[in-house]
Amino acid sequence: MKNTQIKLTARPVGEPKRSDWDISTVDVPTPNDGEVLVKTIYISLDPAMRGWMNDAKSYIRPVRIGEVMRAGTVGVVVESKSDKFKTGDFVMASLGVQQYGVSDAKSLQKVNPNLAPLQTYLSTLGMPGMTAYFGLLEVGKPQAGETVLVSGAAGAVGSVVGQVAKIKGCRVVGIAGGKDKCDYLVNELGFDAAIDYKNENVQKAIKETCPNGVDVYFDNVGGDILDAALARINMKARIVICGAISQYNNTTPVKGPSNYLSLLVNRGTMTGIVVFDYQDRYMEGAMQMGQWISEGKLKSKEHIEQGIENFPEVLMQLFNGNKMGKLILQVNDL
Amino acid sequence: MKNTQIKLTARPVGEPKRSDWDISTVDVPTPNDGEVLVKTIYISLDPAMRGWMNDAKSYIRPVRIGEVMRAGTVGVVVESKSDKFKTGDFVMASLGVQQYGVSDAKSLQKVNPNLAPLQTYLSTLGMPGMTAYFGLLEVGKPQAGETVLVSGAAGAVGSVVGQVAKIKGCRVVGIAGGKDKCDYLVNELGFDAAIDYKNENVQKAIKETCPNGVDVYFDNVGGDILDAALARINMKARIVICGAISQYNNTTPVKGPSNYLSLLVNRGTMTGIVVFDYQDRYMEGAMQMGQWISEGKLKSKEHIEQGIENFPEVLMQLFNGNKMGKLILQVNDL
Repeated sequence: MKNTQIKLTARPVGEPKRSDWDISTVDVPTPNDGEVLVKTIYISLDPAMRGWMNDAKSYIRPVRIGEVMRAGTVGVVVESKSDKFKTGDFVMASLGVQQYGVSDAKSLQKVNPNLAPLQTYLSTLGMPGMTAYFGLLEVGKPQAGETVLVSGAAGAVGSVVGQVAKIKGCRVVGIAGGKDKCDYLVNELGFDAAIDYKNENVQKAIKETCPNGVDVYFDNVGGDILDAALARINMKARIVICGAISQYNNTTPVKGPSNYLSLLVNRGTMTGIVVFDYQDRYMEGAMQMGQWISEGKLKSKEHIEQGIENFPEVLMQLFNGNKMGKLILQVNDL
Repeated sequence: MKNTQIKLTARPVGEPKRSDWDISTVDVPTPNDGEVLVKTIYISLDPAMRGWMNDAKSYIRPVRIGEVMRAGTVGVVVESKSDKFKTGDFVMASLGVQQYGVSDAKSLQKVNPNLAPLQTYLSTLGMPGMTAYFGLLEVGKPQAGETVLVSGAAGAVGSVVGQVAKIKGCRVVGIAGGKDKCDYLVNELGFDAAIDYKNENVQKAIKETCPNGVDVYFDNVGGDILDAALARINMKARIVICGAISQYNNTTPVKGPSNYLSLLVNRGTMTGIVVFDYQDRYMEGAMQMGQWISEGKLKSKEHIEQGIENFPEVLMQLFNGNKMGKLILQVNDL
């Protein structure tokens, strides 16, 4: 058995390109006592990956040059030297962008493909779902009747933010790129309105779709859209800073929010979140969202591409918007 | 008796200039039943005034063209048609930039010049002091042993922020312009260190003077100094947005904080404050700070200029840094 791996070979300047990666094939490793060999089926592709490629202090250390790219994964146990797992068990892991990986037992989490499709454990029941759930409820603190605005709304995090806010009784407006995504938000996910940032004046559209102003803004994109949202916040508004995908490939400094003094005028709060802070509550989030999924109140959408060798190009779909829902790469057959 | 008034005649572009003001002299008004005529002694000059001159939605309506400029004042009652005040009473009011004004009784607050010098009621025991006290304690929430960084540190708000943080057991570093102000902060007010932004690399100086990072940053200035502070915040840091004096006379858009994603990396919070929200607690703040003043723990410094006709130029001392402590204009003899 052979194992194809994607390693980071250069720190990208601007958009990551194929020459920033090394694709090589090695022997499948052998687990030691207490370890488990996992065949990865699905790999999670996330905007945060772009930050991990930079040599900068952040909430997690950078991926080293020559190291297999960090990624969340789900797979199946093919060999176990731990009494906690047996061959055929499905597991969540963080084995990176490769087809096989060895893990100690405590870094694996068993999942049940009969409760939810396997890919869901990388989307709504995985990190993006947890980010949305805890970021919205613990930091955004939406109250029934309030207006929640979310950017990157057709993405893995934003689509869950909007649906959870609807479940909590809020008016929900999503910002996404293109008519298809906007139609999807309103017609499939039940958003009250959607704004197509590629074809609309966002500030004007926020004014029209949020006639009572914005109480919670959940930001995944930064840049001009963050400024447009700041211009329409209500008193005591909560702004959740989850990401800034519009800025990640910048070769110029990040665009700071020129309208940040709206926080002063409106006594608003802008707070950054990182999902790892809620690690001890993931079970709670997964159980609640699993229940909503089973009741048909929460929909999970994944966009699955094929083939580990395509990783460099598939990653770019995060930034060019050429996907809907959670972006996943399948690297082995089920 | 005559009353000289300063009225806004044009909305300034960039720095306010003399031609934006009308100086005229009218008869002193006569109070109606329930009203009081006050001779103003001191007028408060505040950075917030610059915002009130713009025709923009804010936490308070703009001053109208042709209207007497809004300002906080302290003065003495010279004629009373209210049973709540008698001639000779000293009062805090908001009678604007003029020598005399009529007020209803409920908009006046009696003050005692034997408890604190009259000018103190426009500084540490007035709006700047309340802004510092509630902004720091209620939003910044400093804990003993934490590091508190404050900009505009030699100003009316910043100097109180730093001293209150010292009283609460924090390490306190102030940012101010020029050696005299920095010496004053360390030698007179007991700050642990001061950074001279006119002559030092602020980011490097923050690193050196805050070796354990910044837990609370109280921002009065915005711009590059806000970015320098964001670069050094600790996990769960609290950033209090009180003002942005570096940006108020901009003719270009406000510089947003390019380093705002430090909030995400460090799960920090940036919150805007307006002192009016604490109106029902001013007595509490005044009593606590009055006690600290009487115990010698809190020093109040006022910079008093003379003559209502000099208002246009004296106002500019807020922006060119040519003052230390609270800027006040005396417009009548005591």
